[in-house]
Amino acid sequence: MPDSPVSPTAALTRNPERGSRHRPDLDSVLDAGRVATVSVALDSRPWVVPMLYGRFGDRVIIHGSTGAGLLRAAAAGADAAICVTHIDGLVYAESLFESSANYRSAVVMGPLATLTGQDAFDALDALSDRVMPGRRAELRPHLRKELAATLTLAVDITADNWIVKTRVGPPDEPTEESDVWRGVLPMRTVFDEPIAAPGIPEGTPVSASVLAVRATSPSS
Amino acid sequence: MPDSPVSPTAALTRNPERGSRHRPDLDSVLDAGRVATVSVALDSRPWVVPMLYGRFGDRVIIHGSTGAGLLRAAAAGADAAICVTHIDGLVYAESLFESSANYRSAVVMGPLATLTGQDAFDALDALSDRVMPGRRAELRPHLRKELAATLTLAVDITADNWIVKTRVGPPDEPTEESDVWRGVLPMRTVFDEPIAAPGIPEGTPVSASVLAVRATSPSS
Repeated sequence: MPDSPVSPTAALTRNPERGSRHRPDLDSVLDAGRVATVSVALDSRPWVVPMLYGRFGDRVIIHGSTGAGLLRAAAAGADAAICVTHIDGLVYAESLFESSANYRSAVVMGPLATLTGQDAFDALDALSDRVMPGRRAELRPHLRKELAATLTLAVDITADNWIVKTRVGPPDEPTEESDVWRGVLPMRTVFDEPIAAPGIPEGTPVSASVLAVRATSPSS
Repeated sequence: MPDSPVSPTAALTRNPERGSRHRPDLDSVLDAGRVATVSVALDSRPWVVPMLYGRFGDRVIIHGSTGAGLLRAAAAGADAAICVTHIDGLVYAESLFESSANYRSAVVMGPLATLTGQDAFDALDALSDRVMPGRRAELRPHLRKELAATLTLAVDITADNWIVKTRVGPPDEPTEESDVWRGVLPMRTVFDEPIAAPGIPEGTPVSASVLAVRATSPSS
């Protein structure tokens, strides 16, 4: 074996003590994101698709076209796992083995229920309010044909169908002497200036909802 | 059904025409990220964990503690799906139904091979070079005990075991009249100023590798 460093062993599974059973921690991780990866098992093989999602109360809601294969499998009763991950920084330690990443992740598991009628309506409203808060008030009501073309699924958060894991802060105390720099390179997601679609009338003001989302994490 | 808007039907599965079979597109999406969600199916249930990963040539490499349950299941032959997602913006259209997100996503599927000896060594080097480029040269060589504690797995990219999907650009041409603003709110990940670990000697310069990563997407 040559003398060369091993990679950063920052497997995010490595430290079970990073888990939390505190429900507000789950909500906090879920509500900080917009896109989850949704996994189902099909014939012992995993199938995974990134999707917009939103939490509302004890529900995690996803949606999509009634033609979407994974959603149809989930609607037919397949167990699903909805995974949300935020990467907050790279953790540079005195060795690659001790290096890591700061992150917040949540997984909510279980069969998904297909929502219909008022339930679906409320869930889609809630999803919209998470992904594009404020936008609903600026647009016309939906059309019935749109609702009919949309498959709306939800999993209820129960006492034990979820996992939250986080790592925060600096690298752990060094396990050996080293004069190399140690610390964290923080990462975050920012919103840049809105870009108007081609062809909209000159002078159309950027919608208040768009400006409000941008203000949550402006790049400048 | 009340007259109220449906949520943004931006299911990322909705538009099969967004797929690509162009291998450089796959590499580009994989190489732009550091964390993937790794899914396996276990007793018809999906199991998913976010992990650091790296592509090197035709391989996607993941690693972790030899005690990590999901990795052990994968090492035992379970099929896996490795999913990478970048969200590039929120796409505000004239209706929530037509609203969407700009994104790049990739999934690589298949059984994972457990790497050993020189293969594992090279793979861990490559993973390190993707996650913390340049860092390897600044640190001591790894220890044998570290390598022994690390499970290194890889899936080979073949002609047909991957999917790439992207959406770019403004909202589609409007399907109806509206005077509301339409456009894109761009999103991206930035690196903030490095934060030194407590206790490192005053004046220790931030490592060149850290500064170089920061420069790829500086917040200021």
